[in-house]
Amino acid sequence: MPTTEQFNLHCPGFKAAGISCGIKKTGRPDLALILSDVPAVVAGVFTTNKVKAAPVIVDMARVKKGKAMGVIVNSGNANACTGKDGMKAALKMTGAVESALGFAEGEILVASTGVIGVPLPVEKAEAGVGPLVGALSYGGFNDALGAIMTTDAFPKAALASGRIGGKTITITGLAKGAGMICPNMATMLAFFTTDAVIGKAALSRALKDVVDRTFNSIIVDNDTSTNDTVLIFANGVSSGAEIKAGTPGYRAFCKLLFQAASRLAHLIVKDGEGATRFIEIAVRGAMSAPQARMAARTIAESYLVKTAFFGGDPNWGRIMAALGRAGIKMNEEKVNIIFNGVPVVRRGLDTGKEVEAAHAIKVKDVAVGIELGMGKADATVWTSDLSHEYVRINSAYRT
Amino acid sequence: MPTTEQFNLHCPGFKAAGISCGIKKTGRPDLALILSDVPAVVAGVFTTNKVKAAPVIVDMARVKKGKAMGVIVNSGNANACTGKDGMKAALKMTGAVESALGFAEGEILVASTGVIGVPLPVEKAEAGVGPLVGALSYGGFNDALGAIMTTDAFPKAALASGRIGGKTITITGLAKGAGMICPNMATMLAFFTTDAVIGKAALSRALKDVVDRTFNSIIVDNDTSTNDTVLIFANGVSSGAEIKAGTPGYRAFCKLLFQAASRLAHLIVKDGEGATRFIEIAVRGAMSAPQARMAARTIAESYLVKTAFFGGDPNWGRIMAALGRAGIKMNEEKVNIIFNGVPVVRRGLDTGKEVEAAHAIKVKDVAVGIELGMGKADATVWTSDLSHEYVRINSAYRT
Repeated sequence: MPTTEQFNLHCPGFKAAGISCGIKKTGRPDLALILSDVPAVVAGVFTTNKVKAAPVIVDMARVKKGKAMGVIVNSGNANACTGKDGMKAALKMTGAVESALGFAEGEILVASTGVIGVPLPVEKAEAGVGPLVGALSYGGFNDALGAIMTTDAFPKAALASGRIGGKTITITGLAKGAGMICPNMATMLAFFTTDAVIGKAALSRALKDVVDRTFNSIIVDNDTSTNDTVLIFANGVSSGAEIKAGTPGYRAFCKLLFQAASRLAHLIVKDGEGATRFIEIAVRGAMSAPQARMAARTIAESYLVKTAFFGGDPNWGRIMAALGRAGIKMNEEKVNIIFNGVPVVRRGLDTGKEVEAAHAIKVKDVAVGIELGMGKADATVWTSDLSHEYVRINSAYRT
Repeated sequence: MPTTEQFNLHCPGFKAAGISCGIKKTGRPDLALILSDVPAVVAGVFTTNKVKAAPVIVDMARVKKGKAMGVIVNSGNANACTGKDGMKAALKMTGAVESALGFAEGEILVASTGVIGVPLPVEKAEAGVGPLVGALSYGGFNDALGAIMTTDAFPKAALASGRIGGKTITITGLAKGAGMICPNMATMLAFFTTDAVIGKAALSRALKDVVDRTFNSIIVDNDTSTNDTVLIFANGVSSGAEIKAGTPGYRAFCKLLFQAASRLAHLIVKDGEGATRFIEIAVRGAMSAPQARMAARTIAESYLVKTAFFGGDPNWGRIMAALGRAGIKMNEEKVNIIFNGVPVVRRGLDTGKEVEAAHAIKVKDVAVGIELGMGKADATVWTSDLSHEYVRINSAYRT
C-alpha cells in the first residue's frame, strides 16, 4: 500500500485551511475549508442512496444555482439520519462561513463524514469557523486534506496540469475514505478545484463522465454511503477562452480530470481496510456497456472472488459463477479468463496453467481480463481483496 | 451451532444408499443413490446461474417428463465448467444406474457437488454403481446423507409427517451446503421424498412456492452456485386420494413441505462457514412483496451489516444505509428498527437504547425487525454474520 506522498498542493485562486474544532474526540483535525478567491462555477455528483445526509441535501440544491465560493467540511460526524436538527446543523455550518466572509446565503457548500445517527455538535463547528477562516492560505490544501480524513491510512491527493487553449490549467483533488467501508464512518468525499474557464453545463458533464469511470468504478464492498459527495469548483482565474463541450479543449480538460480522479480512486481502493491486493477487473467483448459494467461489478463484489484473491488462489470457477449470475448475455463456451497475463480459461475450459497463474497473482497488483466474445463493449472496475483485517476493522464496536 | 442430530430417516417406498467410490481424495463417502420402489412424480428447482453444471442441464430436461425413479449424487467434484466431456460424464452416471436396475434411459436424475472446472473422474462413479445399488435399503438415508456432504460441519436432514385426506403422509429431506460458501465447493443440494399421491403440476407448484420462502430466502453470501438443485420425488405409496392444487389437502401438503424445507434452510445458514450468529431480517410495511424482499436481501447481503453483527454492534446506521440503496420506495422518517425486541430507531431517529440493544443481540439468534410504514407487504430472510473464520476458510487455497 502506498505511503503518504507530499505534494506541494495548490490551485491558482483557491485558499484552503484545516483545523481541530473538537468534533473528533481524539483532538485530530476535523474542520476544513476550501475557498475560491472569486465566485466559481460548481458541479457535483452525490450518493444515489435514498437516505441522504443533511449536507448532501443542502449541496444538491446549491449546486443547481451554478456558482459557489467554496465548501466547509467536517469529519468525525456524518450528520446523517439526524432529522430536522441535522438539516439545521448543516445550514448553521454554511451560515457561519457565509457570515464570517460576508457572503450571501447559499454561496458555501458543506460536507460531513463520520458516525451516522448521532447529532452533530454543531456549536463546535460554529466556534471553529473563526480560526478556520483565519488559517486560510494558498498553501493550506494539505491542512484541509488532513482535516477531512477519518480512518484513512494515508491522505489522498492529486495534482494534474496541462496546456489547454494556450493556458496552463491546474486541477487539484483531495479525497477521503473508501465507499462505506469504515465502522460507521460513512462516505467517500472528493473535492476538485481548477482555474479553468468552463461553463456550468460542460463542467457538470465532464464531472459526471469522469466520476463514472473512476469513483463509480471502484468497489471496496457492496455498500453505498449516505454522504458520498464529489464537488468541483472552477474559478476561471487562468483567464483563457471558455472550454466548451465537444471541443478538443473539453476533451483535454476531461483527460486532466480523469488523471486526477483516477489517481484518487485508486488510492481509495488501496486504502480499503485490510486490503492486501489491488485488483483490476477488465471485461471485454460484452453485448453492451451496461452489461460489461454489470459483469465487472458482479465479479468485483463477490465475497468468494475477493477472499480467493486474498488467499492467492487463481480460482476462476468463482469468476465464472459470478458471470453466470450477473444477468448478462453470455455463453460459457466463449469465455476466456486471464490472470496477470496467464490464460487460465480458454473457451470456457481450464487451460491447465493453474500453477503459473498462482505464481503470477502473488503480487500487490492483479489484472484480471475476462473476454466474453459476445460483442464489442468493455468496462473496467478496480477493487481490493477481502482479508481478515477487513472483518476485524468492521466488526470492531464503534465506541 | 447445532450438533449432529440422528433421525431414523426413512420414507415409505424409498430406498437409499451412500458409499465411497474414490472421487474424494480423503476416501470419505462420495456417491449416493435415492430410489423409489415405483415410478415417482418428480419436480425440481434449479440454479438461476447461467453457467449451469452438466447434471443440472440433464435434470432440467428429465424433470419435464414428470416421472423418474430416483437420483444419483456425487460429492467431491461439481462437474461444472467441464464442457462436452462433463455432459457425457453426467449421462454415464445416470446410464450406469439405469443399466444396473433395468430402467429406461432418462429415469434416473443426477447431481454433483464439489470443485468446479476439473474433469469428473466418471470411471470411479461408474465402478461405484454396482456396490451402491447393492447397498440400497429402506434405512439407507443416513448413508446417502453422509455421501452428499462436502465441507458441511454437520448433516442436514428433516422428517415431517401429518395426516392428509385420512392418510399419514411423510416428507423426508436431505440437504448439503450453504449456497456457494465453500472454497470452490459450490452448491446447495436438497432432495425430498414423499409417499404422497400428488400430480406433477401441483407438486411443481408446491415446491416452487416453498423453495421461494425457504432456500431462496437464506443468504450466506452473495453468490449463486452453478449446481444448486432441489428435487422432490412423490411415489404415491400412501395410496390416498390425489392431492390437488387449491384444496385443503394441498395446503396441508405445502405446510409439511415448508416445515421440512425451512428446517433444512435454517440448518444451512447455521452451518455458514464461520457463522457465529443466526440472523432473521423481517421487513414489514413495504409497498410490495418484491420491495419487501429486496429490502431484506439488501440488508442481509451487506458486508457491513454482517460484520457489525459479528462484532455484536447494534449499528443501525448500516441498516438504514442498506435500505437507502435497496432500490425500494421508502421514507427515512417513517422507518422503525427493532433488534431482538429493543427499538433502536423510531421514525428514522435514534431512540438512545444502544446499550440495551447491544446487550440484546449478544446471543446466537438475532431477530431484526424493520418497519417501513409504506404499505402492507412483508418478507423475511435468514442469514449469518461475517466472521474472521469465513475469510479464513474461503481464502484457503483449494488444494
